[in-house]
Amino acid sequence: MPIEMHPTRWGDPARASALPEATRGLVELVFPVIDRTVGDDEAVAIPTSRLPDEVVAELYGIVGARHVLTDDASRRLRTRGKSTPDLLRARAGDLSDAPDAVVRPGSHDEVQALLGVAARHRVAVVPFGGGTSVVGGLVARRDGYAGVICLDLLRMDRLLDVDPVSMTATLEPGVRGPQAEALLAEHGLTLGHFPQSFEHASIGGFAATRSSGQSSAGYGRFDAMVVGLVVATPAGTVRLGHAPASAAGPDLRQVFLGSEGAYGVITAVAVRVRALPGERRYEGWHWPSFDAGVEAMRTLAQSQLLPSVLRLSDENETALDLAHPDSIGSAGDGPSGGCLMIVGHEGTAATVSARRTAVSAVLAGLGGTSVGEEPGRRWAAGRFDAPYLRDSMLDLGVLVETLETAAHWSRLRSTYDVVSAALKASLGEPAMVLCHVSHVYETGASLYFTVAAPEGDDPLGRWTAAKRAATQAIVGVDATITHHHAVGTDHRPWLEDEIGALGVEVLRAVKHAVDPQGILNPGVLVP
Amino acid sequence: MPIEMHPTRWGDPARASALPEATRGLVELVFPVIDRTVGDDEAVAIPTSRLPDEVVAELYGIVGARHVLTDDASRRLRTRGKSTPDLLRARAGDLSDAPDAVVRPGSHDEVQALLGVAARHRVAVVPFGGGTSVVGGLVARRDGYAGVICLDLLRMDRLLDVDPVSMTATLEPGVRGPQAEALLAEHGLTLGHFPQSFEHASIGGFAATRSSGQSSAGYGRFDAMVVGLVVATPAGTVRLGHAPASAAGPDLRQVFLGSEGAYGVITAVAVRVRALPGERRYEGWHWPSFDAGVEAMRTLAQSQLLPSVLRLSDENETALDLAHPDSIGSAGDGPSGGCLMIVGHEGTAATVSARRTAVSAVLAGLGGTSVGEEPGRRWAAGRFDAPYLRDSMLDLGVLVETLETAAHWSRLRSTYDVVSAALKASLGEPAMVLCHVSHVYETGASLYFTVAAPEGDDPLGRWTAAKRAATQAIVGVDATITHHHAVGTDHRPWLEDEIGALGVEVLRAVKHAVDPQGILNPGVLVP
Repeated sequence: MPIEMHPTRWGDPARASALPEATRGLVELVFPVIDRTVGDDEAVAIPTSRLPDEVVAELYGIVGARHVLTDDASRRLRTRGKSTPDLLRARAGDLSDAPDAVVRPGSHDEVQALLGVAARHRVAVVPFGGGTSVVGGLVARRDGYAGVICLDLLRMDRLLDVDPVSMTATLEPGVRGPQAEALLAEHGLTLGHFPQSFEHASIGGFAATRSSGQSSAGYGRFDAMVVGLVVATPAGTVRLGHAPASAAGPDLRQVFLGSEGAYGVITAVAVRVRALPGERRYEGWHWPSFDAGVEAMRTLAQSQLLPSVLRLSDENETALDLAHPDSIGSAGDGPSGGCLMIVGHEGTAATVSARRTAVSAVLAGLGGTSVGEEPGRRWAAGRFDAPYLRDSMLDLGVLVETLETAAHWSRLRSTYDVVSAALKASLGEPAMVLCHVSHVYETGASLYFTVAAPEGDDPLGRWTAAKRAATQAIVGVDATITHHHAVGTDHRPWLEDEIGALGVEVLRAVKHAVDPQGILNPGVLVP
Repeated sequence: MPIEMHPTRWGDPARASALPEATRGLVELVFPVIDRTVGDDEAVAIPTSRLPDEVVAELYGIVGARHVLTDDASRRLRTRGKSTPDLLRARAGDLSDAPDAVVRPGSHDEVQALLGVAARHRVAVVPFGGGTSVVGGLVARRDGYAGVICLDLLRMDRLLDVDPVSMTATLEPGVRGPQAEALLAEHGLTLGHFPQSFEHASIGGFAATRSSGQSSAGYGRFDAMVVGLVVATPAGTVRLGHAPASAAGPDLRQVFLGSEGAYGVITAVAVRVRALPGERRYEGWHWPSFDAGVEAMRTLAQSQLLPSVLRLSDENETALDLAHPDSIGSAGDGPSGGCLMIVGHEGTAATVSARRTAVSAVLAGLGGTSVGEEPGRRWAAGRFDAPYLRDSMLDLGVLVETLETAAHWSRLRSTYDVVSAALKASLGEPAMVLCHVSHVYETGASLYFTVAAPEGDDPLGRWTAAKRAATQAIVGVDATITHHHAVGTDHRPWLEDEIGALGVEVLRAVKHAVDPQGILNPGVLVP
């Protein structure tokens, strides 16, 4: 049974741990540490379920009473997502966004029927997979609705089809990352999608939010892996994708990808898969500066010579190694100062060897220094652990949060500069702003920022102001408001900056066509 | 000044030529040859321009009188596209689809203003670039409209911006293929988009129809090259694309790509570009069967080891070598029988050498036989010439037309079989059905069919029936109704098979949002 996450923290409670003493000492050197440990969150009250009895009865009729959960514990575990504001609200005892019921459909037809009930009774529906949204994607507007249903899709967790000739597989939306890999591994296949949320997030969520994983350099973004979709909407079912590519008008797959539960419930996703790599080799390269490392990434991307994993920490992140609290403050294995790049190759022994030789030659030629496999091993071992560290820091009264963007290469440095400056100016001393590049393309790359700052009297207000300042800076330099975290409610104020007023009108027009009653994830993506 | 094509034939009249005697002799062996040479098409009457004077006056006000053409010759040259049905209608003296006026805007703002005039007066607007549509994409419905304007975009032919760091370039929609390459070559860059229509078709058309070129294996489809778009619609301007990738909701670029002039007029396209290759090496490989060659293509695609050009003719096309009429019936250079594959490598000398070595090893290992560079040279020399051959065949009373689809690898052979059978059954003896694969992906490939048959008493009806049979077969085997030629009017009856009734409703909803009066290319794409 997969872990259901508490609204106050990430992941498996058994894997949470206090910071090592040395690390805690270092944190105390930088930040004013206070005890913000939260107690048993089962003690926190959540609003009473207010779903009308007749609706509950109809839901029973579709999925059976055992799959309609209105108890406090079930609703608590599906309250909001996992942004720092989400955690801060829950830590402060605010679970006011709890759904009125959790409904667990087992099939596409059940989802379709549930949408019919919700539409008739004007009940808001929040599609819910791993619950890992960090953009407010799981908080429905309540005004004007008879209640809010969390549509928990985790029962829909089958591998529906494998086509080893076409190298495609069809998965239900509730299959989580590790389960997808396990199911595909039985056929010698991999999806190759490893976002930080991998251990909890689901296939449907990857599709609905345009997720991108840590191996995107080699395997591509999730939206680029999708060859077909089945979507249940209040207006009916949409089935898309007959071929690897088509010129039959607009690509509607790219309309439902990124639709964030506001256009429908994705009930099946056909993805391109690859052969399970026989070999994985992750190693570290040291660069004298962030700019030098970025230039090397650009060279690889524009030479169509990308490894499977390519990630570059800036000077601050390299020095801190935030993902490895046991080594914070240590000098690391490589030369001191400068920037660490993780270069990972996956494939057959032959392809790994050939690709590694070619990539290494380029990196060495551009001034990089190989620092061996130890940094790669350490990165791989801790690649999904950063959210646990965030919880530990929140327990010490240190606000930790991330945000991300992407820009064309020619504007990447200016984007980095203005966003860093905006975050520092907003958060003041002694805030830390770290950054890495983890997704590269021929024309540009992503920037992923992590901040740490004393939470102060109003941590939520403090972060909201910093996020606003950073996003204004992003918009000002013509970068994207989100590279791989979706719009949700948190980025909605800037959607018009991204796609224009008419673009927003187009999204609304589609919304009205597929969800005329406006019951799907109201308030998310399209106002 | 680029060639303006006559409605009865392809391209530059100076390049048209009768078939060599030997070839003509061969055609006569197979088909009943009759003289269908058409005369001077300036003699064919076209309908009188019926655009109201007040509309013409307003158009003058925007672009100036010299850019509003209502004379017969200008309108004749922009009547319909270049499908065989289009040519047959024109050859039969039917130019009833001629626009009432040709308007030539010089800027985005002029396009925007022209759309305002058209919307106010309910005048249909057909965006027009190279005029090479083969799916009826340039024929507007007339009922209920005050007239039809051809919006000729060829004055908008500038390279607006080059970003050599991000490797992007922004082009106006009226830049034709050769001109795009020439403009980019000044910066040492290439777009790498070479569809058969290359010499005439335009950037705006490539985007609006999701074109795919002969070098798609190495450079990708046109829709995959686009990083940004500016679109003028009756409801206002849409500007899209701030970054190489984004998770900010649905990807609206993929809604306007493939919108076929029905959602707006594309006025600027930002594309990913590559370094101009220093070396191009095209060579032939012989395969004992089509299946063996297809399997080799699949292996390369799924090994992420694609050359720049990869094309495989089936046994019939290999034997006939239709694109090289001077050699029709010759045994060719390689082993007799079997299938010819063209493998082209482009890049630096080093990358061509490395890629060629790796690709050749795979091909030889799978049973392919290298037949040297001569077939590659011949293919490259004639790669844009097939439409001229079609004209020569039409002059002999032989109906020649093409159609294309794409399918996942596991269904490629069955798609090939059912479409071939449908075409043969519909056209009867002595029809010829040839096929090649020219676009490959990890999950599948395209199939491009060419047919030749006696035109009979009703060539248009004959082809319409064959096309219907082939498309029904395509739909029946769950392949796509078009891989790179768009929907137009010709594929519209099957759009619902492709995207479902609700998918069509979504397209209509978008149409209504951007073109509430329905003036843009009415009848194309969305009914």
